[in-house]
Amino acid sequence: MLFVSLVHAAEAPRPNILFILTDDQGYADVGFNGSPDIITPNLDKLAENGTIFTSAYVVHPFCGPSRAGLMTGRYPHKFGSQFNLPSKYGMSGGLGIDVKETFISKVLQDAGYYTGAIGKWHLGETAEFHPNNRGFDEFYGFLNGGHVYFPEKFQKVWKQGRERGQYHSIWHYMKPLEYNGQDVQENEYVTDGLSREAVKFIEKAGKKDEPFFLYLAYNAPHTPLEAKEEDMAMFPNIKDKKRKTYAGMVYAVDRGVKRIVQSLKDTGQYDNTMIVFLSDNGGRPDQGANNYPLQEGKGSVLEGGYRTPMFIHWPKGLHGGNKYKHPVSALDFYPTFANLAGAKVPEHKKLDGKDIWPAVVRNKSARAGENIYVMRHWAGKSDVAVRRDNIKAVKLKHGAWQMYDVDNDPGETQNIVEQNRFLLQELVAEFEIWSWTNVQPQWFYTHNEGATWRKHGMPRFDQTFKIAPIKN
Amino acid sequence: MLFVSLVHAAEAPRPNILFILTDDQGYADVGFNGSPDIITPNLDKLAENGTIFTSAYVVHPFCGPSRAGLMTGRYPHKFGSQFNLPSKYGMSGGLGIDVKETFISKVLQDAGYYTGAIGKWHLGETAEFHPNNRGFDEFYGFLNGGHVYFPEKFQKVWKQGRERGQYHSIWHYMKPLEYNGQDVQENEYVTDGLSREAVKFIEKAGKKDEPFFLYLAYNAPHTPLEAKEEDMAMFPNIKDKKRKTYAGMVYAVDRGVKRIVQSLKDTGQYDNTMIVFLSDNGGRPDQGANNYPLQEGKGSVLEGGYRTPMFIHWPKGLHGGNKYKHPVSALDFYPTFANLAGAKVPEHKKLDGKDIWPAVVRNKSARAGENIYVMRHWAGKSDVAVRRDNIKAVKLKHGAWQMYDVDNDPGETQNIVEQNRFLLQELVAEFEIWSWTNVQPQWFYTHNEGATWRKHGMPRFDQTFKIAPIKN
Amino acid sequence: MLFVSLVHAAEAPRPNILFILTDDQGYADVGFNGSPDIITPNLDKLAENGTIFTSAYVVHPFCGPSRAGLMTGRYPHKFGSQFNLPSKYGMSGGLGIDVKETFISKVLQDAGYYTGAIGKWHLGETAEFHPNNRGFDEFYGFLNGGHVYFPEKFQKVWKQGRERGQYHSIWHYMKPLEYNGQDVQENEYVTDGLSREAVKFIEKAGKKDEPFFLYLAYNAPHTPLEAKEEDMAMFPNIKDKKRKTYAGMVYAVDRGVKRIVQSLKDTGQYDNTMIVFLSDNGGRPDQGANNYPLQEGKGSVLEGGYRTPMFIHWPKGLHGGNKYKHPVSALDFYPTFANLAGAKVPEHKKLDGKDIWPAVVRNKSARAGENIYVMRHWAGKSDVAVRRDNIKAVKLKHGAWQMYDVDNDPGETQNIVEQNRFLLQELVAEFEIWSWTNVQPQWFYTHNEGATWRKHGMPRFDQTFKIAPIKN
Repeated sequence: MLFVSLVHAAEAPRPNILFILTDDQGYADVGFNGSPDIITPNLDKLAENGTIFTSAYVVHPFCGPSRAGLMTGRYPHKFGSQFNLPSKYGMSGGLGIDVKETFISKVLQDAGYYTGAIGKWHLGETAEFHPNNRGFDEFYGFLNGGHVYFPEKFQKVWKQGRERGQYHSIWHYMKPLEYNGQDVQENEYVTDGLSREAVKFIEKAGKKDEPFFLYLAYNAPHTPLEAKEEDMAMFPNIKDKKRKTYAGMVYAVDRGVKRIVQSLKDTGQYDNTMIVFLSDNGGRPDQGANNYPLQEGKGSVLEGGYRTPMFIHWPKGLHGGNKYKHPVSALDFYPTFANLAGAKVPEHKKLDGKDIWPAVVRNKSARAGENIYVMRHWAGKSDVAVRRDNIKAVKLKHGAWQMYDVDNDPGETQNIVEQNRFLLQELVAEFEIWSWTNVQPQWFYTHNEGATWRKHGMPRFDQTFKIAPIKN
Repeated sequence: MLFVSLVHAAEAPRPNILFILTDDQGYADVGFNGSPDIITPNLDKLAENGTIFTSAYVVHPFCGPSRAGLMTGRYPHKFGSQFNLPSKYGMSGGLGIDVKETFISKVLQDAGYYTGAIGKWHLGETAEFHPNNRGFDEFYGFLNGGHVYFPEKFQKVWKQGRERGQYHSIWHYMKPLEYNGQDVQENEYVTDGLSREAVKFIEKAGKKDEPFFLYLAYNAPHTPLEAKEEDMAMFPNIKDKKRKTYAGMVYAVDRGVKRIVQSLKDTGQYDNTMIVFLSDNGGRPDQGANNYPLQEGKGSVLEGGYRTPMFIHWPKGLHGGNKYKHPVSALDFYPTFANLAGAKVPEHKKLDGKDIWPAVVRNKSARAGENIYVMRHWAGKSDVAVRRDNIKAVKLKHGAWQMYDVDNDPGETQNIVEQNRFLLQELVAEFEIWSWTNVQPQWFYTHNEGATWRKHGMPRFDQTFKIAPIKN
Repeated sequence: MLFVSLVHAAEAPRPNILFILTDDQGYADVGFNGSPDIITPNLDKLAENGTIFTSAYVVHPFCGPSRAGLMTGRYPHKFGSQFNLPSKYGMSGGLGIDVKETFISKVLQDAGYYTGAIGKWHLGETAEFHPNNRGFDEFYGFLNGGHVYFPEKFQKVWKQGRERGQYHSIWHYMKPLEYNGQDVQENEYVTDGLSREAVKFIEKAGKKDEPFFLYLAYNAPHTPLEAKEEDMAMFPNIKDKKRKTYAGMVYAVDRGVKRIVQSLKDTGQYDNTMIVFLSDNGGRPDQGANNYPLQEGKGSVLEGGYRTPMFIHWPKGLHGGNKYKHPVSALDFYPTFANLAGAKVPEHKKLDGKDIWPAVVRNKSARAGENIYVMRHWAGKSDVAVRRDNIKAVKLKHGAWQMYDVDNDPGETQNIVEQNRFLLQELVAEFEIWSWTNVQPQWFYTHNEGATWRKHGMPRFDQTFKIAPIKN
């Protein structure tokens, strides 16, 4: 038997949940997914002693909507969060994820969990959208979509800007970090600072009776590409400067994970902590990332855009050494975590994902015959893809629908649409039905995107769901 | 005295209400409106012993918005239901008539009525919009906008599609019928099946103490044109194949009405049952229908599109043998039924119609000096018409406003706009004021219609309410 | 010490508030702002014994949105009231200022004030938007955006139109005035009628224990230009006919103010009544107004469009003879009045202004370092301006951003943008952030404006907030 029995798991105390999210990390950029050059020994050890998910999908190939899906358990297209927040100025001006969408953090908090968010937020910055008002007892990090890594750099620019009367017009990647709403002076390389705070949270949690939920959202290896010399020195064979820096940034995360694992062990919480590792979307090949064997990267609805590295490690709940090849969605964390925590989901809360745990512990597909959608709007068009079982149908910029067996052909090289015309009809029909409950975006990343949207009469789903007639 | 006294009616037990709605039936396609070739002896008998309404208007010249107006008592433009639901796949994907709009069925149910809906629904298919959740104790029929009539035909196609993995992409006119949410196997020609279920409902109702409300929505004679040989054989003189089939379909409804009337008599409910007969919009001349003397048909805002055959038969409440020539609207059923049933309309429920009963029993106009509007959006424009008393103003596709005396000139042949310029100004002014509370459509029948709407900056009411300057 | 002590004021009984709003009156068209030809002796006396505000801004350069801002304490762009109501027919067809926005009148009424509105309403005409349902015990006036001044004129046209069956299509400036929802026959020149009703209200208030809030909204000197001969005769030196008429209309207001002041004295309420005088937006130079030294007028975001004459007179609360040169906004009245009245603002009510009273009594800036925005959408573009302290940045029709020191250069003649590039960046950044919470307009003044809005993909904020790159 590969897995711990469910009965056993159910009898155990509720697990701690440590969710580690990295930012724009490529599918191939972890040792456990076979990176040829980057080493992540600590992540690998957890992955090998846990279950590696080879077909894990995030909800959108960009940060904001991806995280919105994670936190709400719903496709962001259904509550107007299809675009990144307009965080240009590091201040979304009263915008944020609809407060009617209860976050998983709130559900766990209400169930008695001690909850913390560390790192990048990117889900709204005014009071009502602040992590402390969305279910997190603790927040350390920054509210916007990214940050510069070296304190000596961002502190200087911030100071200079403030001195000449600027505030919002200083690039927000330079802002001070905060702890529960108060500016703090972070003096470490930011990845190290976040790891330090994670350790601190875990130690605090160790002294409490209730279990914890920690959402640790590293901004690494998101741009700007900035690594410590000592971390880059780990990769003497990498000559490309961007790749070398990127590798160093990933390595810094891995170093942090080592410290975190140690603190879990030191506080006796290691065995009953479920550690989930995920990237928020695909990596950027133009910024040092490698999504091999997947095509394209961040922003794309080809596999490289939204299939990301993932593992779950949980000594008490899941036997190690396994690979789970069936598709799962980031939408599934919400109901899965809620069930494992014995937490009550609010009565009228709609969820698009499902509790995958019963299937995961049996290494069966949790979503046989079910669809996972992805849709990115841009330039007055929509890129779309739907996966069911091993098959994926995809359409780019109003081109023709293509189909791939992404289990056996994850690089999407052999178009098998001709052989699957009835399945295509069905998948497109269900996708179109799904689209009818999409709502207008509540915001656009830039005003220009909004103008384009309106000018093109978006969404042009008449084009999106058009199938070339089938010849019988 | 032509009518039973009101006092008498008020003292009587509350009436049963049997609402018979046909689908796309032409104004002239009933014997009681003078059809030259189609015979409807059973409908005619009821009409002759009741009151024939010669100027009855539905709310919209298409099925979905027409029914939405009937059920809500409001113009569908005010709650975003201006278009048919996107029922392309027989599954409206979470869309349906706004649940904030309490249906008349719910009002009657809350007042103690035993309520049933039989036939075509077309007002939303997911749980919250299902007839059983909108005030109907019983539902037998199909949720989408139409159905194939012969079971041997639809059962076969359904089976074949299911076998090759299709579901939503099978033409939804082929789906199984359902009873209260459960698929059933209908083995009769659908019109006969619906009549059979109506009889069953009436028999069940006869054993109850409370009165009933039955909404019997035949899909006949809506396309596809499919009639039984025996019904077509009733029309040996009709040579045109479409007309012959159409006639047979109408005749099948009439046969059903015979059985229904008999069951009302058998169960002692005949005298106190108000039977209302109506078509949901005009017939399609290209599909066998005849709207004579009205111009055009389904989809038009000329009379043929939305003035439909109608009678009310109610032995205990209404003397027979009368014609009511004043205009009435399908919006009026809601408040009229509610009052006759002594039912309480929810406090904040807005209604656009009025209780016409006091005027009907006196054969007076119920709407003297009041307007009845119709508006159909299509192809980036709006066709509009407003009727007040005997006069109608109409504007097609941003052409010039025309006016007709539709009492004396129902065929709309003599444009009298020049003689009525002040009245036109007033009617257009009131129409424009009415338009200010129109809301954006909650859906479009096709994505393409939505794209057209947005591309044209709809609604282009600046064009709609433009009157050519009046020369004094 | 120039001002009465705050402590003293706090101990005093709550003040009466008499808010006098004129319509389209120019910045220079009062004696206390130095008019060279118009005399307003009674307003001047109050101004001189009170505080003259030389930099008072209304929220929008048009009547409807300006009044919406006044009553709600919020920028109308945030609740969809960016445009005048479509009052073309004097009947906004169920439209009005969002009922979720509690008016200041309701706050004061709930705090025990006796409240009255006299004159022009322009904030919605159906029941839910009627002054009597928005916090006013009394209403005398007209609900739409303007009125003809001579009863013999409007009564005749109204009668004639009614006789030929018109109602909504009669120009609404001709409608009868009303008192609490009932038509009345006004037999005086309208300005005199409104003054008479104000006196009546004040006398009634004098007999009550609670303080009063009277919102006296003269439509003068809004078009049509109609003055009494005797008032025009006061200006023998004015030759221009429009200017002469306009001057007479202003003089009629001033005559009314004299009667009102007398009634306050007669009823012993003069000392503890705070009289605020304001115009709802700039004057129209093409209709006799003079905004000197400000450029342009009504409709413009240059100073002439939305900086208006203002004073506050309150013997018990504010020493006289002062000028307050710091910027204030019409948004500030709401929280200022609420605080002075000891009234409770509803918990979730959002406010964009602030209580300026503590700063006003000390003649300090109430808004140091804070922004006052103005934005007018038209013709598919947006005119915008933001003032902070003495500096204003302004952009017209997608032209380049300009900056002015409007304290020293109120005529906006010296563009100082080159010297203030960092401040410009900051102001535009904050403006853009502000814009993210703008909502789509709930209505347009004309359908054509709506069509233009949609056709241009409005709001084109991508253009609005574009700054030409700064050369270092």
